[in-house]
Amino acid sequence: MQIVFVLFDRITALDAIGPYEVLSRLPGADVRFAGLAAGPYRTDRGIALVADHALADLRPEILVVPGGPGARAVNADPRLLDWLRQAHAGTRYTTSVCTGSLLLGAAGLLQGLEATTHWGYYEELAATGARPVARRVVEQGKIVTAAGVSAGIDMALTLAARIAGEEVAQAIQLGIEYDPQPPFDAGSPGRAPAGVLALARSRLSNRPAAAT
Amino acid sequence: MQIVFVLFDRITALDAIGPYEVLSRLPGADVRFAGLAAGPYRTDRGIALVADHALADLRPEILVVPGGPGARAVNADPRLLDWLRQAHAGTRYTTSVCTGSLLLGAAGLLQGLEATTHWGYYEELAATGARPVARRVVEQGKIVTAAGVSAGIDMALTLAARIAGEEVAQAIQLGIEYDPQPPFDAGSPGRAPAGVLALARSRLSNRPAAAT
Repeated sequence: MQIVFVLFDRITALDAIGPYEVLSRLPGADVRFAGLAAGPYRTDRGIALVADHALADLRPEILVVPGGPGARAVNADPRLLDWLRQAHAGTRYTTSVCTGSLLLGAAGLLQGLEATTHWGYYEELAATGARPVARRVVEQGKIVTAAGVSAGIDMALTLAARIAGEEVAQAIQLGIEYDPQPPFDAGSPGRAPAGVLALARSRLSNRPAAAT
Repeated sequence: MQIVFVLFDRITALDAIGPYEVLSRLPGADVRFAGLAAGPYRTDRGIALVADHALADLRPEILVVPGGPGARAVNADPRLLDWLRQAHAGTRYTTSVCTGSLLLGAAGLLQGLEATTHWGYYEELAATGARPVARRVVEQGKIVTAAGVSAGIDMALTLAARIAGEEVAQAIQLGIEYDPQPPFDAGSPGRAPAGVLALARSRLSNRPAAAT
C-alpha cells in the first residue's frame, strides 16, 4: 500500500510527520516522502525533511498533502497541480492537512465539496470552490481533509480505522501514546481567550494575499 | 535561545517534530537538529531527518532528546552520553520524549528523580536509577520528561509556558490548532480495550532486551 507524502519548500513539518507516524504503522504500509524532485526540502521553521523520491515516479494508493507557508508558492506550480490531479484519479484516499487543502483546491479537486483547513485560511479555501467547514476532520468520499497542523494525527487515525479497522487504529493510537493532555484549552479560535486569538492572528505570517 | 534536538538512526520522527513544532515558535528560538555527525538520520519507519549540525559544536540552552528504537543502540555510545552530560551542565532545560529518557538515564542524569517514558519501557527506565511515573509530563527542576511519542507536544507547550508565559504558549497552541480530538479513547494502557493493549504490546518491536 503505497502512501505518498508530498514535500515542498516551506512545508510545516508536523503536517506531514503527524499522519506519517500513524499511517506508517498500518500493515503493509509503504511510505514515501516525495517532491517534484528528490532531495531535502527546508521546512518553514528551518529544519529539513528528505524526499527520497520524485513524485513523477509514484502512483499512491493513499495521498497526503501537508500544508505550510510554502503551499502558497507551490500552489502556482502547474507541475505539482498536474501531478495531484493525475495521482488523485488513482488513489483510494486523497487527503490533506492544514493548508494542504489549498493545493487540492487549486488542483480543482474540491469543487463543491466540504473541506477544512487551518482556521486562518477558510476564505482562501472557499476561493478554490470548496465549502469550508470548521471541523477537525472532513470526509467527502475518498477525499479527507484535516484542520491545522496537529489535526493530521486525528485525520490519520480516522483513516487508519477505515483502512485496517478500529482495533488496528486503536493499537496504533496506543503505540504512539496519543492520549493528548494539552496544558491549556486554547487550541481552537472559538475557545482561546481573545488576547490569545489576537496574538495568534498576528503570528500567522506569510498568509496568502487573498486573505488580507 | 539555542534549542537542540538530538538525532540518531532509528529515531521516532514525531518524538522530535512534535516539540519542534511548538518550541520553534518561541520568540528568539534558534532551533538546531544535530547528531554525533551532521547529515541525514534514518527514522524507525523509513524517512530521513537532517542534522544540519554536529553535537560537539553546540551548547544548548534547551535540550530535547527524542526516543525511538535507536535509543537502544545509541544508549551504548559513550560519545553521546558524554555529550549529554556536558550539555546538561549548561542547559536551562534538559528534556526528553518517549524512550529519550532512557538516554538521559544512561548518562546518569535521572538518578533518584521521577521521570517518564513510553508506557512500554518503565522497567528499562527504572534500571537507569530513575523513578518511573505514569504521567504525561514530569517536571523535576530543569529536567522535563514526556511519555510516549505524541506526549512531546504536551511537554513542549508546558515548557513554552515556563519560558515565555502562558499567553505565548497558548498562541502557539492555537497556531498549530492543537485541539486534539482523537476518534478513539485508546491512547493509554489504562483505558485501551484489552485486545488493543495486547495488539499494541505485540507491535512494540525492538524492545531493549532488559524488558523481555
